[in-house]
Amino acid sequence: MSAETVVRLAVDCMGGDHGPSVTLPAVESFLARHPDAEALLVGRPEAIARARGWPRCRLVEAQEVVAMDDSVEIALRRKKDSSLRVAVSQLKPGADGRPAADVCVSAGNTGALMAVARYVLKTVEGIDRPAIATVMPNAKGGYTTVLDLGANVDCLPEHLMQFALMGSALVTAVEGVDNPSVGLLNIGEEAIKGSETIKQAGELLRAAAAQGLLNFHGNVEGNDIFKGTTDVVVCDGFVGNVALKTSEGLAAMLSGMIREEFSRNLLTRAAALVALPVLQRFKTRVDPRRYNGAALLGLQGLVFKSHGSADAFAFEQALARAWEAARHGLLDRVHRGILATSRGGQTSVSPASPLTMPPPAVSA
Amino acid sequence: MSAETVVRLAVDCMGGDHGPSVTLPAVESFLARHPDAEALLVGRPEAIARARGWPRCRLVEAQEVVAMDDSVEIALRRKKDSSLRVAVSQLKPGADGRPAADVCVSAGNTGALMAVARYVLKTVEGIDRPAIATVMPNAKGGYTTVLDLGANVDCLPEHLMQFALMGSALVTAVEGVDNPSVGLLNIGEEAIKGSETIKQAGELLRAAAAQGLLNFHGNVEGNDIFKGTTDVVVCDGFVGNVALKTSEGLAAMLSGMIREEFSRNLLTRAAALVALPVLQRFKTRVDPRRYNGAALLGLQGLVFKSHGSADAFAFEQALARAWEAARHGLLDRVHRGILATSRGGQTSVSPASPLTMPPPAVSA
Repeated sequence: MSAETVVRLAVDCMGGDHGPSVTLPAVESFLARHPDAEALLVGRPEAIARARGWPRCRLVEAQEVVAMDDSVEIALRRKKDSSLRVAVSQLKPGADGRPAADVCVSAGNTGALMAVARYVLKTVEGIDRPAIATVMPNAKGGYTTVLDLGANVDCLPEHLMQFALMGSALVTAVEGVDNPSVGLLNIGEEAIKGSETIKQAGELLRAAAAQGLLNFHGNVEGNDIFKGTTDVVVCDGFVGNVALKTSEGLAAMLSGMIREEFSRNLLTRAAALVALPVLQRFKTRVDPRRYNGAALLGLQGLVFKSHGSADAFAFEQALARAWEAARHGLLDRVHRGILATSRGGQTSVSPASPLTMPPPAVSA
Repeated sequence: MSAETVVRLAVDCMGGDHGPSVTLPAVESFLARHPDAEALLVGRPEAIARARGWPRCRLVEAQEVVAMDDSVEIALRRKKDSSLRVAVSQLKPGADGRPAADVCVSAGNTGALMAVARYVLKTVEGIDRPAIATVMPNAKGGYTTVLDLGANVDCLPEHLMQFALMGSALVTAVEGVDNPSVGLLNIGEEAIKGSETIKQAGELLRAAAAQGLLNFHGNVEGNDIFKGTTDVVVCDGFVGNVALKTSEGLAAMLSGMIREEFSRNLLTRAAALVALPVLQRFKTRVDPRRYNGAALLGLQGLVFKSHGSADAFAFEQALARAWEAARHGLLDRVHRGILATSRGGQTSVSPASPLTMPPPAVSA
């Protein structure tokens, strides 16, 4: 997809803790800023009626809603006309061989979204398991992309290798970084550290790097995520989920403590007033809403997941990330990255920028 | 050991990034505050000479030093007269059947310390693998004890169960909490979440709780560490290490950002001056040096590990934690906890406070 093409987003308007009261204003603001975007608004007709007639919008009816605590089974088997499922289905090629939308965004529950997306779209050939990737801010002023974040609790070395390829493709597409560096999350930098799975994954990654398929930095540790040592950090879903949630917990505790200290007495309240602009700037920099929008990678369709508790500002960030990914052909990049590896590196892919080249031809 | 007994600490004075320049002042200050403590100062004679004649101190010579980057092999096989090993050896019963020290503290490299301690002291009967436990501050104003932190990268459910017992004993001994609550670190609160290992560990923990052997809260997530949902959080060493390092990385990034924002220009510098007392209080509350001192649990001897980069203040905290643990008979508590479980709960251990009771008698 070239940069000039219109990007069509299918939006699950009913998903998340707040549904249309958050998703609709977010879409409205997003479309105002992105004249080359169109939206398919999926939801209960009465709930999304007020968007009727909005420019570059089309309403798509879905009678059911997947609740945030619905099980995967209910989402998959009972609620076949849910906004979540109908939104994802917009990515399937229609009668004309073309899908109605280029990317889908939902704030619905993660397990249900992954299961439905996997069932409806299927995985890309060469990918055993889709992964969830998100960005965390780093000390370099940029972002570190971390995957997997919970889709896969037990991983084989091959899965970690696939995550590395998909994460690289994502960073190139969304952040515009050529040949992003990849770190393997471990408990020490030395190659001999970690579990057997991690050591074997390290070997696969080194071999792929030697073939110019990706830019492998080596092992990284937990603190490297926030240092920004590498563009991508790869780990299994259990470890990634714990790292993400632990960080959320620490950030919440620290901001609670700062608030507490500044509201202790009259003197500290006065200090807070003076320090307010500085604290506000700091708060903006670390605002988790700015990093909202996790990519579900490895599917035959682009799906982005917003945090369930997102407000309109946060949901709009997820829409923007999804739009950016679609605009820069993330899906094609993932396909090509996987294809190159499955051919054992015997491709014409350039070592400098493996994922920005046209589909590789087998050179051997 | 009763609260009145003198506690004898064996201190590896050469360990850590700074050696005697940090360890000796820390010991001096610690002993001044703890009149019921004695220290065995282990190190090169010339390096620790200035402590000769200090009250309640005895110098123990060791000619070698384990470097922070020495491999486990070198620490274990080549440097048999290292300060690290000699300090740990003070915990072995002497000719009179009594060890020279009650607890050992070292800031030496973790891998070497664990390997030497395991070789010299052996594990407690019923413990397959020793674990490393540390505390993290939580939003409730207390501490959460987390283990394992890197000693064991692949764990069986039984190991996680043993960590829970050892962690409970530690919290009772050091924090004085009766019947501490234990959470199993997972990627969701529901019992069906997580890997097979975690699910089975959950079953073991529920069974042990039903028998009154420990106080199992259930699954917890990464953010619960800092929320303070439970007193103890149990996980495998890979996950624990990543959680700890990720937290360190986030804390470092955030404090760097706060510093950056307050030193942006003259106005923000002025604001910093006004806010200084408040920021200072906040800094003190989250100062990682206050939480220094990780316990190596499951060995036939009490070993505490200080951060390698500790300054004198931080090293003194580790000495204080070690002293507290020894004073309250942590070793006996671990023994008893394990013994009770290996007897399948058919003991006289009270459900309300399993680890503060005298050694259980088999009631069946």
